[in-house]
Amino acid sequence: MFTIHYTLNRIIELVNPSKIQGKLDVDVFTGIAGLNKAKTGDISFLGNQKYKAEVFGSKASLILVPESYIGSPHPGQALLMVENPSKALDAICRDIELQCKKPLPTGIHATAIIDPSARISPKAYVGPLCVVGPNTIIEEEVCLQAHVVVGEEVLIRRGTFVRPHCSILDSTEIGCNCFIDAGVVLGSEGYGYETENGCHKRSPQLGRVVLEDAVDVGANTTIDRARFHETRIGEGTKIDNLVQIGHNVVIGKHCFIIAFVGISGSTTIGDYAVIGGQAGLTGHLCVGNHVMIGAQSGVNHDLEDNSFVRGTPTLPYMLAHRIDALKRRLPELFRRVDNLEKTFAYLTTDTTKACFLSKDERKN
Amino acid sequence: MFTIHYTLNRIIELVNPSKIQGKLDVDVFTGIAGLNKAKTGDISFLGNQKYKAEVFGSKASLILVPESYIGSPHPGQALLMVENPSKALDAICRDIELQCKKPLPTGIHATAIIDPSARISPKAYVGPLCVVGPNTIIEEEVCLQAHVVVGEEVLIRRGTFVRPHCSILDSTEIGCNCFIDAGVVLGSEGYGYETENGCHKRSPQLGRVVLEDAVDVGANTTIDRARFHETRIGEGTKIDNLVQIGHNVVIGKHCFIIAFVGISGSTTIGDYAVIGGQAGLTGHLCVGNHVMIGAQSGVNHDLEDNSFVRGTPTLPYMLAHRIDALKRRLPELFRRVDNLEKTFAYLTTDTTKACFLSKDERKN
Amino acid sequence: MFTIHYTLNRIIELVNPSKIQGKLDVDVFTGIAGLNKAKTGDISFLGNQKYKAEVFGSKASLILVPESYIGSPHPGQALLMVENPSKALDAICRDIELQCKKPLPTGIHATAIIDPSARISPKAYVGPLCVVGPNTIIEEEVCLQAHVVVGEEVLIRRGTFVRPHCSILDSTEIGCNCFIDAGVVLGSEGYGYETENGCHKRSPQLGRVVLEDAVDVGANTTIDRARFHETRIGEGTKIDNLVQIGHNVVIGKHCFIIAFVGISGSTTIGDYAVIGGQAGLTGHLCVGNHVMIGAQSGVNHDLEDNSFVRGTPTLPYMLAHRIDALKRRLPELFRRVDNLEKTFAYLTTDTTKACFLSKDERKN
Repeated sequence: MFTIHYTLNRIIELVNPSKIQGKLDVDVFTGIAGLNKAKTGDISFLGNQKYKAEVFGSKASLILVPESYIGSPHPGQALLMVENPSKALDAICRDIELQCKKPLPTGIHATAIIDPSARISPKAYVGPLCVVGPNTIIEEEVCLQAHVVVGEEVLIRRGTFVRPHCSILDSTEIGCNCFIDAGVVLGSEGYGYETENGCHKRSPQLGRVVLEDAVDVGANTTIDRARFHETRIGEGTKIDNLVQIGHNVVIGKHCFIIAFVGISGSTTIGDYAVIGGQAGLTGHLCVGNHVMIGAQSGVNHDLEDNSFVRGTPTLPYMLAHRIDALKRRLPELFRRVDNLEKTFAYLTTDTTKACFLSKDERKN
Repeated sequence: MFTIHYTLNRIIELVNPSKIQGKLDVDVFTGIAGLNKAKTGDISFLGNQKYKAEVFGSKASLILVPESYIGSPHPGQALLMVENPSKALDAICRDIELQCKKPLPTGIHATAIIDPSARISPKAYVGPLCVVGPNTIIEEEVCLQAHVVVGEEVLIRRGTFVRPHCSILDSTEIGCNCFIDAGVVLGSEGYGYETENGCHKRSPQLGRVVLEDAVDVGANTTIDRARFHETRIGEGTKIDNLVQIGHNVVIGKHCFIIAFVGISGSTTIGDYAVIGGQAGLTGHLCVGNHVMIGAQSGVNHDLEDNSFVRGTPTLPYMLAHRIDALKRRLPELFRRVDNLEKTFAYLTTDTTKACFLSKDERKN
Repeated sequence: MFTIHYTLNRIIELVNPSKIQGKLDVDVFTGIAGLNKAKTGDISFLGNQKYKAEVFGSKASLILVPESYIGSPHPGQALLMVENPSKALDAICRDIELQCKKPLPTGIHATAIIDPSARISPKAYVGPLCVVGPNTIIEEEVCLQAHVVVGEEVLIRRGTFVRPHCSILDSTEIGCNCFIDAGVVLGSEGYGYETENGCHKRSPQLGRVVLEDAVDVGANTTIDRARFHETRIGEGTKIDNLVQIGHNVVIGKHCFIIAFVGISGSTTIGDYAVIGGQAGLTGHLCVGNHVMIGAQSGVNHDLEDNSFVRGTPTLPYMLAHRIDALKRRLPELFRRVDNLEKTFAYLTTDTTKACFLSKDERKN
């Protein structure tokens, strides 16, 4: 883990607060902790309004709070008002990271197995027991941790970091400054078959996977190579753990794709999409820019720019929300219809009969 | 990737079209691309009716279209009418694959660690840093890529291909011509516990995993060993990435199991099932032949042959579809019942009262 | 696999039956099989009432049945009445396991790569091609199978077993007697970003993962390191394959977390929870003790102790069940409201009109 030793002045430099409340009784901060776990000397933060009530009882010596926060520090405690407490904490944590981080190693570990035709920058690092195939290019400041397998004709561009046990299969191209977590498979076989006499024959998958710059891929996620051409993940898109992306999918820039999302073959997603956990998209869809898809949704039709949908099959978010509320009232609705029918039956046998009778009687 | 160089005559040989329209202005085809991305020299295809409108605007020099397609090629472009354009494209891609593919290597890489009691065919290939346990048999034309771990008493039969980082654990048996993608775990521990005084005690898992011939297993999928006896995947069944198959599950022949499907322990599935992505099946179920289960379904009861179901809990497909449509109309239904009640209240206070009154009056 | 050779006396010792019915015509039992697959010489068991009808037709020589079972053995067959047949079978299987199991090896495989500063008990085993980082401590009776990568400052306590291809990343702490199945990632990067000018900037993740004693983690599951402090899994909790646990999640003791469950960041779960397969929990939730969450549920609010919920969004289990039943009756409900409206329209145009008319007439 890490130990820290920050003065208030240094914290102020890092987070640039708009206001400081309270007077500290510690000289240095020595830890970071959640509001309810913090003790004297710790830095904490109010990153989610849900925890607002915990600020008051927190034993943290310093708490980063939003500018809208109303409340006073305890004796000996300081509150720092900042625009975004979570971002402010990140600034501190990034500073800690910088201090802890050893410089990235360079060179090729003696146990790595490198094809003679591979070109590896002398400023890259290839860890223990990595395997790098023919005609692969690994640029400077790339770090492959232990046990990474890189296939043939792969290109990994500058500054990309790859955790253990990844399989970066043939022809994959990874942009600059990507982060590939442990166990990721890039270039797995696309799932495509043609059935003949009851047998499924694999459709050849000749394409590849392309990650543009600054893409993150979470642990044990799999991205299939294209049938031909490419499966492409746009710049700055962040993919969580255990996601599955089918062949020929194209995802735009700066999207969030949360854990267990499955995107079927040939679906195209625009920029700035947010796809909630466990959502599934069928194949050959066209999803626009700035689309938000709720967790566990099942998407089976195209979505226009700025769509905000949820459910299986998906509905506009507010409608889905309303229908969920009404669904909960189904027992009531059934009772109400029962009552209407009963009263009705009563009426049609009594009142309305009476009405008819009065008519008949009038005819008499 | 790949480069291609096909004449029209060679394509005709490969796809056997029933009709050719148009006159080419290129001599050779040099690429394959989707309809809207293709450029002069490219082969494209209409594999999904959704893209029909794109044929007309496509710059591909040659387009494979279904026999039912109505439309004319552009000047310089050819349309080839074929029974199944996707299958026809596969024929071309398979030819490309054959040309690109180096002959499978044979032999054991110097860095592989093989137990002396393992028997490995001299016509098999065991890649860098593989580990093969005692009493394991690897038949001819098997290819283990780098970093495959094979346990004890495993049998891998002829022609099976295993991608990097797979764990083929003790006693697993894999048939001929299977394809095991990267990161697959065969023989993970079954999830079975008995609880005693609040503690969960693992039930010993003594069985194994058996894959019959021509089974494909997608990247990072896990298949648990049986509690005793076996977990079995039938011949020709194709499993996608990130699927979980519980202990003692038996899956029939020629099924499709899509990504994120979870099948709980001891469930049995017949032949030719298609299980959509993110569907879940509880344990101890009996699912018949030719069953289709929609994506994201939750199956908690047995299914007869030819069932076609969807939803959680599952309903017959058409009923599920109808109920989804009605669910969307719940706001309307609530309004209609509100109206009925209001008019009713009005009637029972005015009209029917009036009726009664008229009766009373008549009595006067 | 395994071969067995048990006399009736030995079985009686192992399972301690309350009653024995029937007279055997075999001297030893030589296998274990399900009721409908068993043959003469096999032991079988009735572990699930669903299979009750199969006891009568089973060819097993010995069947473990619950004390409530009513029925007679076939000639030559014995029924052993026990409190819990599944537990009784476990007792037999545990005995088989003991007989089959070689003593755990000790020592460090010649091909493992160990940082000089790591401290590995001479009674631990580090398998082929493992990599162990600086300042890591591995206690006695730990077994790392082949291809395990262990990062820096990791602690793996006594008796823990780790299958191939696991990534136990920096600062992780694993308690005693844990079982980590193949392909698991402990300490993957937490999924946290702050967005600035449309770009997502990773929040530093400085924390770690802690597994308490006797935790099981299924194959290819991923557990993210905390943003700061720790992601913690309580003692005796059993996690299935392909689960995703986000950063700063805290799970209590003796829980069951089934395959494909996703738990988002900072959610806290009490002791003895059971979370069904493919369920998802959003972040920052507080879930109590003894909570049961049905498969495929989507939880987006806190849950009190002893909650039993299901659905997306979740409802109390019985209500969810009732609403599912009513949902299925929506076509009927729409018809009933249609009918009410029609009759009503008829009434308001005829009868009630008549009523009004009679009123009007009376005015004439």
